[in-house]
Amino acid sequence: MAKLYVVGMGPGAEGELTARARAALEAAEVLCGYTLYVELLRPLFPGKDVHATGMKSELERCRWALETARSGRSVALVCSGDAGVYGMASPLLELAGEVPGVKIEIIPGLTAALTGAALLGAPLGHDFCVVSLSDLLTPWETIETRLRCATEGDFALCLYNPASRHRPDALRRACEVLLQTRSPQTVCGLARRIGREGESWELLTLEELRTAQADMFTTVFIGSSRTRRIGGRMVTPRGYGE
Amino acid sequence: MAKLYVVGMGPGAEGELTARARAALEAAEVLCGYTLYVELLRPLFPGKDVHATGMKSELERCRWALETARSGRSVALVCSGDAGVYGMASPLLELAGEVPGVKIEIIPGLTAALTGAALLGAPLGHDFCVVSLSDLLTPWETIETRLRCATEGDFALCLYNPASRHRPDALRRACEVLLQTRSPQTVCGLARRIGREGESWELLTLEELRTAQADMFTTVFIGSSRTRRIGGRMVTPRGYGE
Repeated sequence: MAKLYVVGMGPGAEGELTARARAALEAAEVLCGYTLYVELLRPLFPGKDVHATGMKSELERCRWALETARSGRSVALVCSGDAGVYGMASPLLELAGEVPGVKIEIIPGLTAALTGAALLGAPLGHDFCVVSLSDLLTPWETIETRLRCATEGDFALCLYNPASRHRPDALRRACEVLLQTRSPQTVCGLARRIGREGESWELLTLEELRTAQADMFTTVFIGSSRTRRIGGRMVTPRGYGE
Repeated sequence: MAKLYVVGMGPGAEGELTARARAALEAAEVLCGYTLYVELLRPLFPGKDVHATGMKSELERCRWALETARSGRSVALVCSGDAGVYGMASPLLELAGEVPGVKIEIIPGLTAALTGAALLGAPLGHDFCVVSLSDLLTPWETIETRLRCATEGDFALCLYNPASRHRPDALRRACEVLLQTRSPQTVCGLARRIGREGESWELLTLEELRTAQADMFTTVFIGSSRTRRIGGRMVTPRGYGE
């Protein structure tokens, strides 16, 4: 029985890998993951065996990783960002019961909420919510309810999957929900292609965000009522007493 | 003018440092931070100058870092976990206007929501909220409102600062708010001393969590209605369609 590492690789830049993630990727006999992410890692581990598959084949990939580990080859199942946040740790653990006995180690990594926030300033300096706008696995009504609850609680928000080819208007729809109760002047930010070639970021208002361009490599930050633009950065104060 | 790095060091274990954080700590002439965190790093950087101060002197520490960088010495302002999540990036950026021209780089790190989740399984596999129970800088009513909104939106929750000597009952009070609408059988988890000597974790129900022991080194996870105990781990499925 070999080991199965579920590894959060961070945004893709070599510098954002933790030492523990790097050691697991070194130790594994084969790297398994979505083609794009595996390709980002390949230059760091030349000669390493790779099992790369396309999007939407996550469950197949988890099964392959479990079976491969059971057969005696150690595997690193690679996730962009963190292993747990919309990552593979969850479906893998759900399936692990079907392939008993495999030793699983989950290795956290920097998710886009953290790496994007660091680019913009400190938008998540106080309580926050993370919401995915993908309705692939979640009904849109659930997403909308969560956006309403987050804004009612005056949370700062980080939005994942703000758009895709099949959902070009998800971000606009989300902004319209938020604008029902949150000021159009709310400080917001976009981080694009974090840690990769073409990385960029910008600050804008919630009203401007409504019509902003976003894609699957964009992470969106929406301030609370206390978030401010300070020296060109987006800053949510740590508390109400300062 | 020298550089000021605000560095998320992760939980404290050497393996959880990113390469970028490590390089910044190497590059800085002086490490500045809360005594406990600086002491965790000292063995990795022997001989490095250190400016360590106690808790509650955060603003003084930010000013010292800004002034030191302005005077021409590069500084790494060290944060446990991430630099942005309840970290020093926010107060530092608020104060930076008073000391103009210092070049600030924020370097993200693994916050306890991610490292604790990886220990427990995948409690944050879908939308989640992060809430601090510390009422030092936030009125308790605001905390309670956020807990209500988070549970109304059926978010998974990660709670920071669940207790301290001066707030021994914060976790019990929070659980009582959540129990008004969320099942007492909700899957919950505690992670203690993540990445440090004495690290431990356990799963329990929300009802059991109400009377559980927590301290300032404990991170608390509360499942959504969809979170399950699978193979002894806490797992929140990634979506509603699977």
